[in-house]
Amino acid sequence: MASSSVAVRRMDVGILGATGLVGQQFILQLAEHPWFRPAWLGASERSEGRTYREAAAWHLSDPTPSSVASMRVEACTPGRGPRIMFSALDANAAREIEPVFARAGHIVISNARSYRMDSSVPLLIPEINPDHLSLLTRQRREHGWPGAIVTNPNCSTVVLAMVLAPLRQFGLRAVNVTTLQAVSGAGYPGVASLDILGNVIPAISGEEEKMESETQKILGTIDSDEGNVSPHLVVVSAQTTRVSVIDGHTEMVSIKLDDRPSPDHLRAALTAWRGRPQELVLPTAPPEPIVCMDEPNRPQPRLDVGRGRGMTVSVGRIRSCPVLGLKLVALGHNTIRGAAGAAVLNAELMVADRWIESD
Amino acid sequence: MASSSVAVRRMDVGILGATGLVGQQFILQLAEHPWFRPAWLGASERSEGRTYREAAAWHLSDPTPSSVASMRVEACTPGRGPRIMFSALDANAAREIEPVFARAGHIVISNARSYRMDSSVPLLIPEINPDHLSLLTRQRREHGWPGAIVTNPNCSTVVLAMVLAPLRQFGLRAVNVTTLQAVSGAGYPGVASLDILGNVIPAISGEEEKMESETQKILGTIDSDEGNVSPHLVVVSAQTTRVSVIDGHTEMVSIKLDDRPSPDHLRAALTAWRGRPQELVLPTAPPEPIVCMDEPNRPQPRLDVGRGRGMTVSVGRIRSCPVLGLKLVALGHNTIRGAAGAAVLNAELMVADRWIESD
Amino acid sequence: MASSSVAVRRMDVGILGATGLVGQQFILQLAEHPWFRPAWLGASERSEGRTYREAAAWHLSDPTPSSVASMRVEACTPGRGPRIMFSALDANAAREIEPVFARAGHIVISNARSYRMDSSVPLLIPEINPDHLSLLTRQRREHGWPGAIVTNPNCSTVVLAMVLAPLRQFGLRAVNVTTLQAVSGAGYPGVASLDILGNVIPAISGEEEKMESETQKILGTIDSDEGNVSPHLVVVSAQTTRVSVIDGHTEMVSIKLDDRPSPDHLRAALTAWRGRPQELVLPTAPPEPIVCMDEPNRPQPRLDVGRGRGMTVSVGRIRSCPVLGLKLVALGHNTIRGAAGAAVLNAELMVADRWIESD
Amino acid sequence: MASSSVAVRRMDVGILGATGLVGQQFILQLAEHPWFRPAWLGASERSEGRTYREAAAWHLSDPTPSSVASMRVEACTPGRGPRIMFSALDANAAREIEPVFARAGHIVISNARSYRMDSSVPLLIPEINPDHLSLLTRQRREHGWPGAIVTNPNCSTVVLAMVLAPLRQFGLRAVNVTTLQAVSGAGYPGVASLDILGNVIPAISGEEEKMESETQKILGTIDSDEGNVSPHLVVVSAQTTRVSVIDGHTEMVSIKLDDRPSPDHLRAALTAWRGRPQELVLPTAPPEPIVCMDEPNRPQPRLDVGRGRGMTVSVGRIRSCPVLGLKLVALGHNTIRGAAGAAVLNAELMVADRWIESD
Repeated sequence: MASSSVAVRRMDVGILGATGLVGQQFILQLAEHPWFRPAWLGASERSEGRTYREAAAWHLSDPTPSSVASMRVEACTPGRGPRIMFSALDANAAREIEPVFARAGHIVISNARSYRMDSSVPLLIPEINPDHLSLLTRQRREHGWPGAIVTNPNCSTVVLAMVLAPLRQFGLRAVNVTTLQAVSGAGYPGVASLDILGNVIPAISGEEEKMESETQKILGTIDSDEGNVSPHLVVVSAQTTRVSVIDGHTEMVSIKLDDRPSPDHLRAALTAWRGRPQELVLPTAPPEPIVCMDEPNRPQPRLDVGRGRGMTVSVGRIRSCPVLGLKLVALGHNTIRGAAGAAVLNAELMVADRWIESD
Repeated sequence: MASSSVAVRRMDVGILGATGLVGQQFILQLAEHPWFRPAWLGASERSEGRTYREAAAWHLSDPTPSSVASMRVEACTPGRGPRIMFSALDANAAREIEPVFARAGHIVISNARSYRMDSSVPLLIPEINPDHLSLLTRQRREHGWPGAIVTNPNCSTVVLAMVLAPLRQFGLRAVNVTTLQAVSGAGYPGVASLDILGNVIPAISGEEEKMESETQKILGTIDSDEGNVSPHLVVVSAQTTRVSVIDGHTEMVSIKLDDRPSPDHLRAALTAWRGRPQELVLPTAPPEPIVCMDEPNRPQPRLDVGRGRGMTVSVGRIRSCPVLGLKLVALGHNTIRGAAGAAVLNAELMVADRWIESD
Repeated sequence: MASSSVAVRRMDVGILGATGLVGQQFILQLAEHPWFRPAWLGASERSEGRTYREAAAWHLSDPTPSSVASMRVEACTPGRGPRIMFSALDANAAREIEPVFARAGHIVISNARSYRMDSSVPLLIPEINPDHLSLLTRQRREHGWPGAIVTNPNCSTVVLAMVLAPLRQFGLRAVNVTTLQAVSGAGYPGVASLDILGNVIPAISGEEEKMESETQKILGTIDSDEGNVSPHLVVVSAQTTRVSVIDGHTEMVSIKLDDRPSPDHLRAALTAWRGRPQELVLPTAPPEPIVCMDEPNRPQPRLDVGRGRGMTVSVGRIRSCPVLGLKLVALGHNTIRGAAGAAVLNAELMVADRWIESD
Repeated sequence: MASSSVAVRRMDVGILGATGLVGQQFILQLAEHPWFRPAWLGASERSEGRTYREAAAWHLSDPTPSSVASMRVEACTPGRGPRIMFSALDANAAREIEPVFARAGHIVISNARSYRMDSSVPLLIPEINPDHLSLLTRQRREHGWPGAIVTNPNCSTVVLAMVLAPLRQFGLRAVNVTTLQAVSGAGYPGVASLDILGNVIPAISGEEEKMESETQKILGTIDSDEGNVSPHLVVVSAQTTRVSVIDGHTEMVSIKLDDRPSPDHLRAALTAWRGRPQELVLPTAPPEPIVCMDEPNRPQPRLDVGRGRGMTVSVGRIRSCPVLGLKLVALGHNTIRGAAGAAVLNAELMVADRWIESD
């Protein structure tokens, strides 16, 4: 199916948690989207009734799209907005609100962590595990929802999982990763300037556990009959840090592979890797999901984070690791590939693969 | 031997490369030193004859000591200055100049990397391997120098080696480390602001190799009869990065130990660890070479780098690593414990242990 | 009166708002103070009963003094703590709480803005207007308080007023000032990292008005009989910005003086200037309230903010201004000279000049 | 004349100093330009013969255009490359090389400061003084060059001059400006990270003089018969600082106008202002040369520097100044509107107004 054949008319979509930082990134991703049209904005009661411009303190360097600026913000009440709802809610709100929306018939494409590890909820990276969408059959059976909840991973997990997916063929055994994460990953106001100016915070609460468990689920195999994901057996050990960067998570990765491929072999596998989004030419899919750089000091957030309009993961410094076998540097855009862009790509896959009817 | 019995009169010392960033740190460490008195400043010919204040653009937040500001800078010509010479020369200059000074009778206490891995040169961390000074016997035999060259490790190696030394008792097998290094480690002008503001540079030229090889030599055992260091068999894999921090290298370390001690056991070993500098109460020795912190987000460069006047290594987040067994965060001051302070402590050890006669 | 004759026994003092950023700076200033001893810590009810270490997330690079870490935090209830209370309360809390403490007999030495412009409250910089303490006579008459409220200026006002005070002799007419202010001036969490990393915020709410009005009061003359301050007639126009600096407000100042002194003349006046704290040799008084630098690119926050243990204002680049006559750069430490250190110096002046009885 | 009627075929242009930071910005501005095609790249002899990708360490977040990456870099020898040459040379090189190129018949559109104040060289901002191009008649007469030199102002001058130009109607008398300038204005490697991380440098060598003199020439009137620019009589006093920002100079401006317009009046004049580039709809001309913002804390570099693809100057906080009458904040992109974009707009104006024949 070519992208051109889908959705000649844009489908209305809503955004839950539209005023926060990820909500703003959703608006940027959707404002000019060929298939979707942001038609409904939900936020906390405090914002209800105000225009988006009044309700949201904009924090992105691209300006607020004018098509959205004058829209009225509504409360997050299910049933009234469009069927497709992107969720940028924080975890506590999402835990409560998302099932209510699913029960009311909405397809909730969520960036929140609340239901990622739920056994009937797909934790989706379309290049890696598009077949995990078949969990939705089980989800409907168990919950009886006319809608659904589909999630994307944590922003630091996405970068790692993208790099590991093409390496499963080599017998992926263990991974040691240290992240250097951007402040935008913590939302707004997020990290206090006194904590990060000229400093490193060597911990991000809950982040290491997410990287360790989410990666296994994402790389896992699905038994479609039973509607069950068998997690991949790779063992992941993460150390996560916060650094003085606006956008872009850098990850220093050491990898143990049974087959012990050479760095060149690894590079070839990463470069050649394509997934269903590239096959379907989905609007948000980057032509190259992973780009390998040969410069000795790249990728760097300031120079490389925007590659593929923020959807490409950049990899560099592929070389031998005397402890685990191979090591490399990976970089991804945490609020695009790691949040709003990820969710939009999920929705595109669902439309293209008919999990969402385009009216 | 107690510290009070040594050096009632301060010994004159010189500084080679006195105008650079590490040279400035040497001056701060020595200006009020109870045993040593900075009496001679050497720099490139460009600076010769000028006062130190004129010759050096000062880059430290503590002001230039007034006792030094009006001293005349001399060329790096051997034979004229004091017997003890601290070397802050860059590697190319050090390779050429340091042996000439040793041959002329100077004790060169060097921070340069040029001779660290030379088989007859001690690579010293006084808490770890004070016995490596016996290499000097071989050094004299081989070179016939009336003087000597003694070195301290690379700034990122010191922090790692300090943490690993107390763990040798548990069967130290392998280490995976990612560093987040401060810009002062690159000297002045060093890292361009365009390269590091809001950015991460995921590579530092030559740094990973230094961490991997120097650590083995430092932790190695010496056969004093043969004058030979057998390197420790620990396998180290390093990934080194530069971040927007002025002072303080943060290191995310994963460690494989044969004996699989618990995190609490590890913490106890690190906390209890003392070395010969503490025994001798050397002036620059911190009472606690390693401090373990229990806060979930420490150590941090801005808050912790000055501990023990920059000579203590701070450790935090000791916990299990599903891949290698244990992981932790370590932090040290790269221009004090990692450079000038390290060399001064080396000199103190040499005086206290009679490798240098205090006149 | 020499400082040595005062306060052989340290007087107990309390800190209102002890857990915030300015409260922490108060604790550092007072922990080793020769006259005062921090004996009572007040904070919001949330912190009541917890130890200071538990209640306060410490944000300063000097560690929490051990003498304070285990003290219990109390609620801000008047009457129970020591007579002298330093106030680091925010403006809303201060407006309500400080008069209650004054009424209960406490001497409130406040850093809050709430009562600075009150006609019976001294707005004190001890080098400039120690005689304004005579407003306390009026304050007692009007309010009937057995205690008192004394204030120090806003952090950006202090730096400016220090520079202008010695220039009143030249016929001080008008001032144009642009500030580049540190993030610590906004407290904790204060400025969000997304707002300031790689950015400038060209406005600080209420700051410009404070600089314009407070400066006139500070430089004003007092009629002690009437207990009235006649504000100085200097016209101040301020533009205030926030920049990526931890500590230190830099101010670019243009000055119109009737007498049109030369830059050298101005420099001499600033350098020679001394006040009552220097005369009394108060413990927190810097020997030189203002230091003039001749380097073409100084003062700079990173290099100069700590001068005089944070109590000296550094001035540089004194030169002609084609519009107003003279211009210069000034720098001061915003949480020491601009907050906690200022208040402690106020208290020292009050003790030395017998506005507070030392028991 | 509509833009569509010009240059259906792209004209070949060259770039002198193509490998530096401004050279790179030129390449970005020209790679997709509708009228010009980068066909020749000149740099120092060190780079001669290498491909652009090899010769230039790329420092911009937009990637190197592929059309340029494989071009060979040539030495800056006149006569061989295209007629139109954009110059990103540094001042010393420009002083020597640019006249040689003009003599050899090239039209040198220069960003260098070397000839800006030369009485026969236009110092051009196309919105302000397109008629200054008539200086070229005098330039040819005096020098006998078949080519020409045309310049754009210093990056901080452009922002100021754009704001002042529309205010000449009110009787522009005096200006006090403090700049907060980005590090990209200093090129690469430019400002050392140790000098700017968490710091402010309160001086930029030569910058204040440039702002004070260039502004008068730009705003001056031309007597076309005599080929002479009478400088505007406005008195400018500048204080220039460097801050931790990548792109975007922020300027705090106080203005004295004879007519004392209200802030609203000023805002209206700035907003309504258009120049010849807008009239001609030049490709690089922003529809709105100046945009006025009403938010209380804008413009900010991170959020606003890209407006009008870097060619719009953003203005905010227009309000009364008690000293000079009015004050405001202005922001412009220093390497686009302040350098490469400025020069490209100059070239477009010269083509559209027939100072350059489009073959």
